[in-house]
Parts: sequence; C-alpha cells; structure tokens
Amino acid sequence: MNERLTHFTEVSHCSPQQLQELLDLAHKISQDIRAFENTRTGRMLVNLFYEASTRTRVSFEAAAKRLGMHVINISATGSSVEKGETLTDTFYTIQAMGPDCIVVRHPEEGNAAKLAELAEPGVHVINAGDGTAAHPSQALLDALTLKQSFQDFGEIRLVMAGDIRHSRVARSAIRLLQMLGVGEIRLAGPPEFMPGDGTTRGTRVFNDLDSAVEGANAIMMLRIQRERISGLDIPDADEYHREWGLNAERLGLASQGCHVLHPGPMNRGVEIASGVADGSQSLIRRQVRNGLYSRMALLLTLTRAQA
Amino acid sequence: MNERLTHFTEVSHCSPQQLQELLDLAHKISQDIRAFENTRTGRMLVNLFYEASTRTRVSFEAAAKRLGMHVINISATGSSVEKGETLTDTFYTIQAMGPDCIVVRHPEEGNAAKLAELAEPGVHVINAGDGTAAHPSQALLDALTLKQSFQDFGEIRLVMAGDIRHSRVARSAIRLLQMLGVGEIRLAGPPEFMPGDGTTRGTRVFNDLDSAVEGANAIMMLRIQRERISGLDIPDADEYHREWGLNAERLGLASQGCHVLHPGPMNRGVEIASGVADGSQSLIRRQVRNGLYSRMALLLTLTRAQA
Amino acid sequence: MNERLTHFTEVSHCSPQQLQELLDLAHKISQDIRAFENTRTGRMLVNLFYEASTRTRVSFEAAAKRLGMHVINISATGSSVEKGETLTDTFYTIQAMGPDCIVVRHPEEGNAAKLAELAEPGVHVINAGDGTAAHPSQALLDALTLKQSFQDFGEIRLVMAGDIRHSRVARSAIRLLQMLGVGEIRLAGPPEFMPGDGTTRGTRVFNDLDSAVEGANAIMMLRIQRERISGLDIPDADEYHREWGLNAERLGLASQGCHVLHPGPMNRGVEIASGVADGSQSLIRRQVRNGLYSRMALLLTLTRAQA
Repeated sequence: MNERLTHFTEVSHCSPQQLQELLDLAHKISQDIRAFENTRTGRMLVNLFYEASTRTRVSFEAAAKRLGMHVINISATGSSVEKGETLTDTFYTIQAMGPDCIVVRHPEEGNAAKLAELAEPGVHVINAGDGTAAHPSQALLDALTLKQSFQDFGEIRLVMAGDIRHSRVARSAIRLLQMLGVGEIRLAGPPEFMPGDGTTRGTRVFNDLDSAVEGANAIMMLRIQRERISGLDIPDADEYHREWGLNAERLGLASQGCHVLHPGPMNRGVEIASGVADGSQSLIRRQVRNGLYSRMALLLTLTRAQA
Repeated sequence: MNERLTHFTEVSHCSPQQLQELLDLAHKISQDIRAFENTRTGRMLVNLFYEASTRTRVSFEAAAKRLGMHVINISATGSSVEKGETLTDTFYTIQAMGPDCIVVRHPEEGNAAKLAELAEPGVHVINAGDGTAAHPSQALLDALTLKQSFQDFGEIRLVMAGDIRHSRVARSAIRLLQMLGVGEIRLAGPPEFMPGDGTTRGTRVFNDLDSAVEGANAIMMLRIQRERISGLDIPDADEYHREWGLNAERLGLASQGCHVLHPGPMNRGVEIASGVADGSQSLIRRQVRNGLYSRMALLLTLTRAQA
Repeated sequence: MNERLTHFTEVSHCSPQQLQELLDLAHKISQDIRAFENTRTGRMLVNLFYEASTRTRVSFEAAAKRLGMHVINISATGSSVEKGETLTDTFYTIQAMGPDCIVVRHPEEGNAAKLAELAEPGVHVINAGDGTAAHPSQALLDALTLKQSFQDFGEIRLVMAGDIRHSRVARSAIRLLQMLGVGEIRLAGPPEFMPGDGTTRGTRVFNDLDSAVEGANAIMMLRIQRERISGLDIPDADEYHREWGLNAERLGLASQGCHVLHPGPMNRGVEIASGVADGSQSLIRRQVRNGLYSRMALLLTLTRAQA
C-alpha cells in the first residue's frame, strides 16, 4: 500500500514508489496526451511566484490548462507583498479562495515546505524552487528524460557540471536520481562552485571537466549566472567556456552517443557551445516537453480523488 | 417589484432589497458552492486595474472562473494607459471586445461610476475601489461576515478604527451597514485620520480606542499605510500600536466573544497584534472566503438573463 | 485550389484569395459571433510580447477565449528574456509546450517570420507587430472595417496621414489594401515622417493634409508619438494639430460622409480632434470590435483541421 502524495516540496519527502509512479504516469502522458486532457475540469491552480520565471510558470500553467484547470497567476511585483503582508498571510488569503493546487516559487529556502504545513485538506502545495535548495518538478522532468533514454537508471553515468553550489536544480536532481538508483553521479566545476553542504554525498567530485566527462553517458550542464563568473579565478565568460563549457571536442571524450541535458535558460557560448545545444545528442528541447508531461502527472496525482 | 441591478459602483445606488438579495445569494453560495459553478460558462470578465491589488483582483478572478467565465486581466502598467490614451478611450476599447463585466479599480474617485454611464446594454461595471471613496464589494463581504455571526444587524455594535479618512473600505462599509440597519457604528482613530466629510454621519466618533471598544461586539481594524504615520503626532509604528492597535488586552474591554475583522493586507504589530489576528475571535480568513462568495453572487446577479 | 494558411506574419505572404476568405469569415463572425464560440475548445494560444500592448494582446486573448482556447500570456518583463536567453531558445521552449498558435510582438523587424520558419507542424505563428515593418492583423481589421462601408474596394479613396515612416500599421494596411484592389491611397505627413523605402509605391504623396483630404471618402489618422514631434520643424503638439491633425473643418473638405479611422490608442488634440474621434463619421470603435472578429477568423483559419 502506497501512501498518498499530498504536497510536492522536496523529492526526499516522497517514497521511491511514489516517484516511480509519477514517472510512469508522466511517460504514459507523453505517449498519448489527449487521453489525459480535461480530466480535472473546473479545478484551480494558483501560481504564486516571488521570483520571475517564464519557463516554470508557463509549464505549470500549460499543464494545468491541458487538464482543464483554471489558472491564476500571482507575481510578487504589484502584489500585496509589497504592502508588507507576510508570506503566511498571503498564503492564507490565496487558500481562502479555494484552489486545489498552489505552486510556490520563493527566493528563500524552506518556504514552500513551511506553507505546505499550513495547507488545509484538499489544498496541495508544490515547490517550484526555493532559494538554492530544491526544484523538485525540474528533477522529475530530468529523470523522465533519462528514463526514456536508458533501459535502467543503474546504467547511467551522469556528469553535472557548473555552478553546483547555487543550483537548486542540481540538488533536487542528485537526490531524486540517487533514490531511483542512478549508476553514478559526477560533479564538476570551479572550486568556488562546489557546495560545502551534503550535496556531494554519494557523488564523485572532479576539478576538471575533461576527466569528469570521460566515459560518461549523460551530461547535464547547469546554467551559470554571468555575474557569478566575476567571483571566480577566471577572467571572463570566454575563458569560462574554454575551461568549463561543454563543446564538441569535450563531448567527444564521453561515451559514444552520450546525452546532453540543460535545464535552461541557456547561456550559449558560456556553459554550453551552440553546436552541442543544437546537436543530435542534445535532449534539451525534449526536457521542456517532458516538463509539461511531468507536471501534468504531478497535478493528476495530487488531485486524484480519495480511494 | 425590485429594480434590476445593472452596475455595482456604490452601495447607495442599490436598494436595501437588492443588497439583501445579494447577501442572501452569497450566503447560499457559501453553503454549497458547487451548485453554482459553471453557471455562466463562456461569459467574460475584464479586470481593469489602475492600482496594484492582489487580493481584490484574484478574488474577482477566482469568482468569475468558478462560474465558468473567461477572465482577462489588464494592469495599467505596460498598457496603453502609459501611451496617453484617456480612461474613456481605454474603456471603449475594452467594451468593444464584448465583455459581460468590467471590474475597475482606479486611484481617482468617481471613475467607475463615470464609466458605468458609458456602458452599452449588457456590459456591467463593478467598482473595485475608486480613490478613497468606495469599495462596495468589500463592504458586501464585510456585511456577509457579520450577517453570519449575528441574528440581526440591529444587534451589532461595530467599532471601525484607524485611518478612516483615507479608507474607501470604511466609507462603503458604513453606508452599507447603515442601509442594513446596523445597531451602532463607532469610529475611532487619531484626529488626522478622522474624515472631514459626511462619512461620520450617524456614527459615534471616539478619540481613544479603549472607550470605543468598550461593550462593542464587532471590531473592524483598518489597514494603516506606514508612511502615513509620519504625518501624525505619533513618533513611530510601535507607539501607534500602543495607542491605536488592537491587542488582546484592549480586545478584553469589548463584549465577550467580540468578533474581529480586517480587510487585509494586515500590518501585524501596527494596527493589529498577531495574537488577535490569529485568535479565536478573528473572522479575518473567513472574510477572504466570503469575498469569493460575495463576488460570485454579484456576478450572478448582474449577468442574470432578462425576465 | 487555395493553398493552406500556416502562419500569418506578413500580408504579402498571403494570396488575395486567402485574404478575401479571411475577410469573408470575419464578416460572418461579425453577424453572428455566438455561432463560432467554443469551436476550438481546448486549443492553446500563447501571446509572446516583447513590447507592451494592451489592445493587441487583449484582442487576441478575447478572440481565442471566445473560441474556447486556453491563453497563456508572456511579457518580456520578468521573463527568461532578461536572463540572456535567445529569442530562438525562448520560442523553442514555448513550442515544446504544445501550443496551437504563438502570437509574437517584437521590436525588431522580421522576427516573427524568422520564428515561423522554426515552427513545428501544427504550430502557427502570428505577427502582432515587428518593429516598424508589419502588423498584419491590424491591417485585416482595417480592411474589414472598410469592406463593411463600401460596396467595393475600388471605390475607396483613402488618406493615411501622420507618421507613416514609423508605422507598421500603415505599411501593412497599404500592402493589404493594394492587394484587395483599393481605388486610391494618399499619404500625407511632415517630410520627416515620409518613408524612404518602397512603402509609398502605388500611392500619392501629399505634403499638406488639406490637399490630401479633398475628395477622399476614408481617412486613417495614424498615432503620433509625442516625443517624435520634437524631431520635426514644428514647435509643439498644438501646432502639429493645426497643421497635421484631423479636425472638423478639415474633414469638411473630404467627400460627404467620409469615414474616419484610427488604429488607437489616440492622442486626442494631436493627430485627431475629439469631436472628429467621437463624431458620426468615426468608425474607430467599430475597428476595435472588428479586431476581435478578424482575429477570431484568423485563428479559426490557421487551426482548421487538415482536409
């Protein structure tokens, strides 16, 4: 008997079975999306975003609308937030309007989980990114993308490279893939970008990208914020690209057919060369589509009727 | 025979019977919201907001979507407004797109009523706040909240406290509750926050909060904008809280079980203590939910088919 | 056999027959809009706007919602755009979410057409304005408005006046009306506002408005951006109005009953006098309504099932 999924704020709060079921459902949706459309007609999702994000907001909005749900978007700009209302009070206000799902993005760690504790029965909180801590629906789409390309998670030798320290995408993906039994995770990046916390547990850390890539069969390049390069011992973005960017030559060191992922938005010519981003080994566009399927699976699972 | 409600820009434009019917319908919706869902499918509501507001915009959006209506949001930022178009021309543009309801918030008094005069048959204008003059749908939810807690409006001894002068919430609530036969309205606040206009007619004005609260069975604390405190003879927000904030001790002076209301967003620790806002006598979260019901009732009433 | 319309980025990419069919369908919709509602339920339209625009965004949103489509709005502010993502990558991201139509407004010429080339089968790109080059759906509504007022396009002697040089509205309207066989197009405006490119081909250029208006039976005044007046040999907006504005006296020089158009938003008292804008010869509000009909016709045509 599997426990019911009520909120989705952190992958480690889910059981491996719950995660497998989410991925299985997302995969089914990917094969016949029409069969799942309008199966949640009249339900309501609120996007409560305290940080700007097109891709995540739009992905949840599209997923919800495909299911027939109403969507209300709230961005912190121009909202009561600026009038000094606390996050908790804003949450209660939104909750009082009777939504089924509240998707929260917030710059501070732990806020989605905190709000989940305040939720009434029937209100499901989804973490769409909290500080540098977690972005679990992104991890779900990454796992789905890998699942579609490998027979078994145990086969995967994945490199994650770049600014691991500031990446909630990396943290969530590492945890999720470890729960799913990924073969190996290698982390690579400038020392300033390596996390000091427990993120590296169970991974292999490399301090040059060539060594990390050798023999890998999947590489996930992380977005680097250009302003963070100035904090490194690296003069500029071009030099960063030479040392830490994924170009065709470096990709050649990996296993044949090694898959390339990137959560987007990409800085072409910085962490990834355009030729690689658009090349035959790139799964980057498929990731976006899988984001739609994963989030539909998530919304369907959270809002299914009690048995 | 009751006259048909065409617009909702000011409570005093409604008959007491129309207001009672709105409250009765809102109360019915509160008891079984599902029965009213999707009863206006395909109709269209436009939120035309010249001032930022999350709670009011989202409340109308949620109410309309529950009824199955399409919603289009327009905020003055990023709109033709900045290109020098007149309010009237913007209104005609929106009206030409065939909406059923146009919800207007504007910083200047009287603009919603002015637009209502320009409306074609079948287009219903709702005032969601005009300057410091009126916010009638907020008054409706306040009245619904009180109606649920008292046998009769005549029993109510209500204190409104804080910045009455700048509060459209107070002005609309005073007028509406007087039309409904409220027992007594007491106003309290620093002299600079007392209105010079006819707002105080039929009320009792107090210049200390303790005296006002004594024997009251409902207290509505008004939001104070922090920057307005600097115009007072009061050094800071802490001192404001001591003199004019509702704390547990002060609430103890009221009748037992005295209800506490606040239109939100709250400044905790300024006009209201956190313990009171979250306490057992607080109806503040219920007010938000009643906002949904009241606005559904309003939209249903305005858009009902001609007999 | 007419070729299928896949994208709508520029009127000259359409055949005259396709344009006639769009106008015929728009006219049918204008006569009985209810018959066309909810005929595209569950389809999805994305508004991707890199420039602010209320009227065009809302017109597409209302048209799509009337047809039962889901609408997702993306404005460049607060989006990945600011994070350095390329336009192309943003487009691929949006496309991966499975929309039927992507409406693009962009400050640079040619971008909508460029994106149309990247579109997958089943994804239809609509140009909602690219730089000063084209705004074809505006031209469509202008043509519909004229079609409703004349027996035949050949009868029309149309003046377009104002800032032709910077007007995508003018460029698209000239091309479309020429394809539809308009009788005569006269352009009038200060020399600095006359285009240096091929826009004037097939038109008659006037350097005073009185001469241009004489004998015209339709006049389209273009919006002038106030800051552009400072680049002219004209001291201020009042003087501009005297020389280049359409007032009642000047309109009296035209044929009796001469129709007045303006794409909006209007600068009353600059390019057009209030009395003319609101007068009996003005079709300006009808243009807005025709925008709804034209865009519904466009969406219906682009998304119709393969034969």
